Amino acid sequence: MNLILLHPNELIWKGDSDSRIESAEAVLKGRRFLHIQSVHKAEIGDLLRVGVINGSTGTGAVKHIDSNSITLNVMLHQHEPPPPLPVTLILALPRPKMLRRILQSATSMGVKKIILLNSYKVEKSFWQSPYLEPTSIDEQLILGLEQAVDTVMPEVIQRKRFKPFVEDELPELAKEKRCIVAHPDQQARFCSTSHSETLLAIGPEGGFIPYEVEKLNNVGFETVTLGQRILKVETAVPVLLSKLF
Amino acid sequence: MNLILLHPNELIWKGDSDSRIESAEAVLKGRRFLHIQSVHKAEIGDLLRVGVINGSTGTGAVKHIDSNSITLNVMLHQHEPPPPLPVTLILALPRPKMLRRILQSATSMGVKKIILLNSYKVEKSFWQSPYLEPTSIDEQLILGLEQAVDTVMPEVIQRKRFKPFVEDELPELAKEKRCIVAHPDQQARFCSTSHSETLLAIGPEGGFIPYEVEKLNNVGFETVTLGQRILKVETAVPVLLSKLF
Repeated sequence: MNLILLHPNELIWKGDSDSRIESAEAVLKGRRFLHIQSVHKAEIGDLLRVGVINGSTGTGAVKHIDSNSITLNVMLHQHEPPPPLPVTLILALPRPKMLRRILQSATSMGVKKIILLNSYKVEKSFWQSPYLEPTSIDEQLILGLEQAVDTVMPEVIQRKRFKPFVEDELPELAKEKRCIVAHPDQQARFCSTSHSETLLAIGPEGGFIPYEVEKLNNVGFETVTLGQRILKVETAVPVLLSKLF
Repeated sequence: MNLILLHPNELIWKGDSDSRIESAEAVLKGRRFLHIQSVHKAEIGDLLRVGVINGSTGTGAVKHIDSNSITLNVMLHQHEPPPPLPVTLILALPRPKMLRRILQSATSMGVKKIILLNSYKVEKSFWQSPYLEPTSIDEQLILGLEQAVDTVMPEVIQRKRFKPFVEDELPELAKEKRCIVAHPDQQARFCSTSHSETLLAIGPEGGFIPYEVEKLNNVGFETVTLGQRILKVETAVPVLLSKLF
């Protein structure tokens, strides 16, 4: 937790009628309280880096600690969050436990839009996972933001049918973007870096089936490869993002 | 498991006195048996991709299946494993659960030498972890090789004292290599790709302390940064390897 992320609702603003600087108070319990206590080992008066979801970053001064909460005096600056990656990640739904780590690492790298898509080799049961519920997804996104000192929440979209998504939605999304599908293929070329807006499609363990690659190629997706080695999706995501931008 | 990895001792060679092609038999139980049964759903006569640790890859024909083992008829070709990355990874010992994933992903990417090093911010208890025992480390390396269709086992070395390692061993290791320490620093430059033999040092969560960075700089390590975002070590490893090679 390199940044303590606050929800806007958690801030209680105080006026600046006298010489006090305008500031807000926030009372933290649960995970953040425990982390600040056990990892930061914060004491009264210590300064911590804070941020507001989809807002500014700033400083939190520890004002009060009791057995199950910590009170911060928060002052926000107008710091810009770190720049996002110009990418939409289209991910064949991974195994739920792996999904959690991927959401976290992709968020920490600056991905701001993730589309979870069905694909032939995605196990049907994955779509029933409680990890796909919004609160569970948000949890991972927040961990990723806290890691990377970012405040801007990514958007995560779920599409349970491959064909309607690729035929009806993808052509519009793909307009004027660099479109790439990662797929081991003898003919495929290697990745190259660019700052263009990019759609990056990554298949499930075992890959997209040829029909799916063809459907993506038809919408303008170019097939790229990472070479001879087949990587787990959770490794392929940071590798591809690093090689593409 | 894109490759079923066999220990040389597991192969029972059969002569080629008649028209039969020289081949070996291997009987698999436990994890590999379960995987072949439940994921590959192999039946008698099916062909599976196999490899011998530190040896060739080849084909295994399913000869016999019973309730707790599978017998393969193995024929080896002289295929070269995929090329390794020309890197030695010097890793401040990560949290044990994360270490497992890093060993696996680094191996799948082609790292062949990993030095686990102490550092000021490494929790002492990490060095007591059962995950540091050779059998436990080998387990992760094998999973990484199986993932990447590789057969060459990486070497993993443990160094529990930072200063003696950096002062006494590192200068020799560093000779004629590109030496890089990843560290967030305003002055540090970004990574660039190269095919040179490289030593890559990555700190613990929270980073190397300035004294440690200075010690590494003194042995010729150049500080590079990944930019504003602070990444988890398990994300930083694939990102750095992707950006450096």
